[in-house]
Formats: sequence, structure tokens, C-alpha cells
Amino acid sequence: MQRYRKMDKLQIARINKYNVFRCLIRQSPINRAAIAKLTDLSIPTVMSIVDDLFEKGMVRSIGKGESSGGKPPEMLEIVPDRFFYIGVDIGRTTIRVVANNIISEQIACLQEPTGEPFPEKLFVERLCKLVLQLVKHLHAKKECILGVGIAMPGLIENETGNVIFSPDFGWNHIPLRTWLQARLPYPIIVENANRALALNESYIPGEEDHTHTTFSVNLGYGIGAGLVLGEDLYTGASGTSGEIGHITVEPDGPACKCGNIGCLEAVASGAAIAREGQRIMGEGVPSKITELCGADPDRIDAKLVFRAANLGDEIALNIIDRAAEYIGIGLSMAVNVLDPDRVVLCGGLMKNGPLFFDKIKASLQKHQMRQVGRRMMISMETKGEYSTANGACRVLANTLWWQRKLPI
Amino acid sequence: MQRYRKMDKLQIARINKYNVFRCLIRQSPINRAAIAKLTDLSIPTVMSIVDDLFEKGMVRSIGKGESSGGKPPEMLEIVPDRFFYIGVDIGRTTIRVVANNIISEQIACLQEPTGEPFPEKLFVERLCKLVLQLVKHLHAKKECILGVGIAMPGLIENETGNVIFSPDFGWNHIPLRTWLQARLPYPIIVENANRALALNESYIPGEEDHTHTTFSVNLGYGIGAGLVLGEDLYTGASGTSGEIGHITVEPDGPACKCGNIGCLEAVASGAAIAREGQRIMGEGVPSKITELCGADPDRIDAKLVFRAANLGDEIALNIIDRAAEYIGIGLSMAVNVLDPDRVVLCGGLMKNGPLFFDKIKASLQKHQMRQVGRRMMISMETKGEYSTANGACRVLANTLWWQRKLPI
Repeated sequence: MQRYRKMDKLQIARINKYNVFRCLIRQSPINRAAIAKLTDLSIPTVMSIVDDLFEKGMVRSIGKGESSGGKPPEMLEIVPDRFFYIGVDIGRTTIRVVANNIISEQIACLQEPTGEPFPEKLFVERLCKLVLQLVKHLHAKKECILGVGIAMPGLIENETGNVIFSPDFGWNHIPLRTWLQARLPYPIIVENANRALALNESYIPGEEDHTHTTFSVNLGYGIGAGLVLGEDLYTGASGTSGEIGHITVEPDGPACKCGNIGCLEAVASGAAIAREGQRIMGEGVPSKITELCGADPDRIDAKLVFRAANLGDEIALNIIDRAAEYIGIGLSMAVNVLDPDRVVLCGGLMKNGPLFFDKIKASLQKHQMRQVGRRMMISMETKGEYSTANGACRVLANTLWWQRKLPI
Repeated sequence: MQRYRKMDKLQIARINKYNVFRCLIRQSPINRAAIAKLTDLSIPTVMSIVDDLFEKGMVRSIGKGESSGGKPPEMLEIVPDRFFYIGVDIGRTTIRVVANNIISEQIACLQEPTGEPFPEKLFVERLCKLVLQLVKHLHAKKECILGVGIAMPGLIENETGNVIFSPDFGWNHIPLRTWLQARLPYPIIVENANRALALNESYIPGEEDHTHTTFSVNLGYGIGAGLVLGEDLYTGASGTSGEIGHITVEPDGPACKCGNIGCLEAVASGAAIAREGQRIMGEGVPSKITELCGADPDRIDAKLVFRAANLGDEIALNIIDRAAEYIGIGLSMAVNVLDPDRVVLCGGLMKNGPLFFDKIKASLQKHQMRQVGRRMMISMETKGEYSTANGACRVLANTLWWQRKLPI
């Protein structure tokens, strides 16, 4: 929609500055003439932008490079650890906090078990303590912390940072950003955790042009997704997009905690797999599930059902197959409608080995429209347990850029 | 993604020109100072752009306006009929051709029944004849026809204009654009018909900022959809997005002509409704359907089933209810994942009165995640039988703008 936005000199100056900055991030060490060449900007423009970055302490000289005939050029590199983004992943089982530097490297992290949810205000106090603990560890001045990005499961209103509804935490209409903002001296943004994860997973190291459509699905205790168009998260009209876990896949199926019937999450999430294992044990059907849990149904979780399946247990295999089949159906809907370049499968369920991934792929291929998604790549998440927290940093960086609050 | 694209003076000049042009379209008659004010451009910039548009015959003076103190200003208006877009809607039942002027007014149209599909090459010859017939009627010079936009049902490869697969026409890998281009002296683009329709339906007259997300569903003989982000069609990685008709809603359901099982189109399209009517009559179940078709199953189409339902026939009502229920399920998936600002229901099935619309809405509300789509508007198409052909003109206009092939 670029063509309808007014373009003025200020805007152009910002874009040029960003391009130089990006070039420095990717190509350091590099000299001014090379930046000018790569960004297609004039040398005086590059010089003035570099001067500004020098002044802000974001670029440094590392001496002279090789001469290509004339005077040897001064080689520049980015100062990565001048500014930091803090990212928080509020997971149902674990809270993770990271600090990323300006070039998106994770330089510090901490985590602790979430435990049983307690009063929201107390929980927010605890989050603040964790953030301040990490900040202290960085030995960074207040003005070097660019902000805090929060990744929260549930329906989030982006403009206000309110949590409209988070079934995992039983939260309804919690003004999370306002509460955090009253306690922390940094800009705060709140984003849905699945979308933050999707943004992080959409980045491919070394890829020059980031123009792909990435659909990332988080398969864990619940099921959610995020759509990334180019470098930007798709949020939707009211900030509640990506709720693939609550599409109806079995109209006469089991109740879902969202209040509906037969949702994908109710038949194929980690919670659903565990429940199905418990149900089958409760019916007295003999299986490895009963053995592995020592006949204690409370010890049956999705991981245990996967273990039983990996031991060749037919019952457990059926549960897994059924979940994979439904996940493939859900994915095929997204693929038919969105025709994305990439589908990334993330979350705890994907840690149970490539067999589950292969089953999901087979179901997707069976159910998606033929000849749709011809150029689609499907892969598993590779960015580790801090991916959502790192995604929160990326959402924060993007938001601050749009709000013109970045120091560059 | 604007921030990563290089901005130079040429780009800015284009954007400024477009903004002035847009302002003239919306606000004519208007004077130069008012354009400068509305576009936030300097008066010299506006004057130079207006001079250029004068030269190209796209703007004319209509005399002096009211003075606001000084010299009365010259009032300008757009010359709407200097250039034309041709749009073609290749429907399974009817072929429609329109000519739109530069301000998107439909100024000529023609249509004829599609008839039984015959050899592709002959069909293309016929399309060319229809286009040339309409062009002749315009009495416009060749250079005044900016191009021809084709709206074709099926999977379309946007870059090449190839029809990958069109179940309605039984076409496989037909190089439609190449064939048309060899026969017509205008730029040709080919787009999926549902997406062309979506683009046209996304426009709301008088709306200043066109920044909404519109999901438009075409419910007819088949079922397809289009997603419009702001003023731009979302196409997808391989140009095959919007295939909501082929999402699986009944895993053990009937076969679909796409080759899969239980697709939305196989249980809720016009064709599916007719088939269900025929099946029930074939089973000898007494109903108004049998009466209305004079016991001739070949005369049962969706319209007839709707007529029977409107007469209170229980069997027909069940068929309609079931279709509406499934359409609501399909829509709820798109709403959960996309959280659009607007959903527009289009196509032949929507011509059967508001009852069907209400049933679909009820099913959507039942199946969508609660609190998702809180700001969503759902409405019926209002732009008439040429909406898809007009959409083809809009797709053409957008494409030519991106390709820098518009005279402005």
C-alpha cells in the first residue's frame, strides 16, 4: 500500500538510515564506499548517516582495510551491544526472559517454572522482578534498554496491550501492558505468543530478501498460529488472528475450553492427546500407556503417549495418528486459503521425533487441494526453547521502528 | 515492508503524482491550492503534476471557482473517459465483458451464455471477439485501452497467466495469457475470478482510507474466496490462495471434483445442493422438490431447492440448513485465522434471500472462537452481476501501476 502513503524527505531519510544500518549489520566489517554501492545511496549520504551512527555509539572503526589502488579505506563495524531488547515468553509451564542486542543476538537469558497461576497482580510483580534481574545482569544503563516485548498466550488487543482472554491462565480483560508500564521504566508491548514465535521462526539466517509468507503453527499444550508477511506480522482487525486451534474439525466432537465443540485444539493438542490416553486407560483397555504411567492416570501426558507409541503400542499409535490427521486437516485449510511459502511446525509436540512430523505432512498432503502450495516448504522449528522470547524482541523492534522510537 | 525498499526521487515523484491523481478523482472539481492542502504537497509540486496530467488529456479546467479573497482559482476535474480498462469475467454459465474508465466507472458491458465448453483455442478466439466487439463500441483509439484483465475460475499462475487447473472448464495447464496476447494488441493479465471479485467488493464508495482486511467468499456453483489487504490482493506464494471451497469439513464426506473427500464445495456449493435434492428425490422421499421439478431430476438446481425451502418444504429446508451450517464452519476457520475487518458473501447462492444469509451468520457465530472478530462486519455483495468483471479491471489497474505502465 506504499503508494498511498505520503512520502517526504523525512521518511526517505529514515529509510536510507535503516538501509545503511542493515547493511552494516549484515556486511560488517565494511567501508563507506561499499555501503554506498550496496545500498545504492550516494557517498555523502552514507557518510552523514555513518557519522550519526558513530555519534550514537552504534558504529566503530576497526582500522584500515585493503586499498584498491588509492588510500586504504576505514573499515566500520556495528557495535552490537550498545542497545538491548528484552523479550519475555509467558508460557504455561515456563517463563523465559531474554536480552537480545541490536543485531538480534541473544546475549542473556533466564527461565523459571510458571507454577500454578496466582493473582494476576502478583504474577505481574513477578514478571517485573525477572525482567529487572536480567537487566541488572546486563550492567546496562536504563537508556540502553530499548524496551520490553511480552509474548502472552491468548487473545491480545494490540493497541492497548490488554489480555482479552487467556484460557491457559484463566485471565479475562487484564490490562497487562498498563500494569507492567506502571512498574517498569521501559516501553512495553504485548503480543500473542504464537505470533511472536512465528515472527522469529520466519527469519532465515543469511537470507537477503525477506519477502516470504510464513505460516507458523505452535503445537503444544494448546494450538495456535501466526502469519508473517515479509518482515511484518499479520495481526488482523482486532489483533486476534492465528487461532487455528479453534477451528471446528469435528462438528460432533468433544468440548473445548474456549466454549465451542470439536475444535482442533480439543482433539489434537498436547492436552487432548493426554486426555485421550487417560480416557482409554479409564476404560480398562490394556496398553503400554497404563504400564508407563504406573496405573496413575495423572501421570499421563502427551509425552508419555508418544513414548508408548514409540514402543509400538497400537492404542497410543492410534491416538497419535488421529492427532496428526486432524492437525493435517487444520493445516490444509490454512494452506488452501493462504498458499504460504513456508509452513513451520513448532512447539512441544514436535519434540517427539520426526515420525509425528511425517504423519502430519502426509495428512496435509492428503487434505490440501492438489496443485495448491506448489512452492511451499514445510519444516520443523529449529530455533530452540527461547524462540518465542526472541520473537517478542523482534516484535518490539518492529513496533518501535514504526513508532519512530528506535535510536537509529 | 516499505522500510526495506530503496526510496529515490523517482519513486517519490510517482507516489506524489498518484496522490494528486487520486485527489482529483475523489474531490473534482477542485483547485490546485486545495489539492496541495489535501495531499500535503507543495503548490509548485502540485502545479507541475497537474500540468503533466493536462498534457496527457487526463485533467481539464472547468472555469473559475469562488474566490476566498484573492484571484478566483481555476477549478480542475478529471477527464474520466480518456483511458479505459477492459475486464472479462469467464463464468461457467455467463461470460461478461466490461469497459471501465479511469475512475472505475463501468461505461459499457456485454454478456452471453458460456454454453458447453469447447476446445480451449476456439474459446480463446471467442473471448477475443467479445473484447474487440466492446472496444469497437467504445470508439476508442488503441492507445486509450490500457489493457485487458481476465477473471478466470480455477488455479492461476499469476506471473505467467497460465491456468494451472480449472475444474469448471476442465482446463489443465492452458497458457491463457500467451494465447490472448498473441491475438489482442493490449496488455493482458489473468487473475482468479474469486480474487477479482474480492478486490471489487472490498471497495466502499466514499471511504477515504482503504486499509481494511476484506475476506470475500463467492458462493455459487463452486466456492472460492479472496483476501484483500488494504488496496492489494493477497495472492499467495504460487498464486493459488483463497481455495476455501476445498477445505475438508466432512472427513468421511462425499467426493469432490478436485479429487479430495468432504470438501466444503462438495457439501455446500450450488452444485452440492442440487445433487442433494436429486439424491433425495431418487430415494423417493416425498417433497416439494419433486413437485417443482415435475419429477425430472435434471431440472433440480440449487435455485429450485431454495424455492421448495421457501415454500416450507422440510426436506429442502434441511438441505439448505446443512449447507449454511457447513459454510459457517468454513467461514469460522477463515475468521479465526485471519480476523478480518469485513466478510462479504457473494455469488449465486446469496440471491436466494436473507434467510440463507442469516443461517450462515448464525453458524459462523456458533463456530468461530468467541471474542475473535470482535470488529468484524459481515455483509452481502451489493455490486451486481458485473462485479467480477469490474474486479478484473481493478486487478489490471493495480498490476499496471506496479509495473509502471499507467499513463499517470
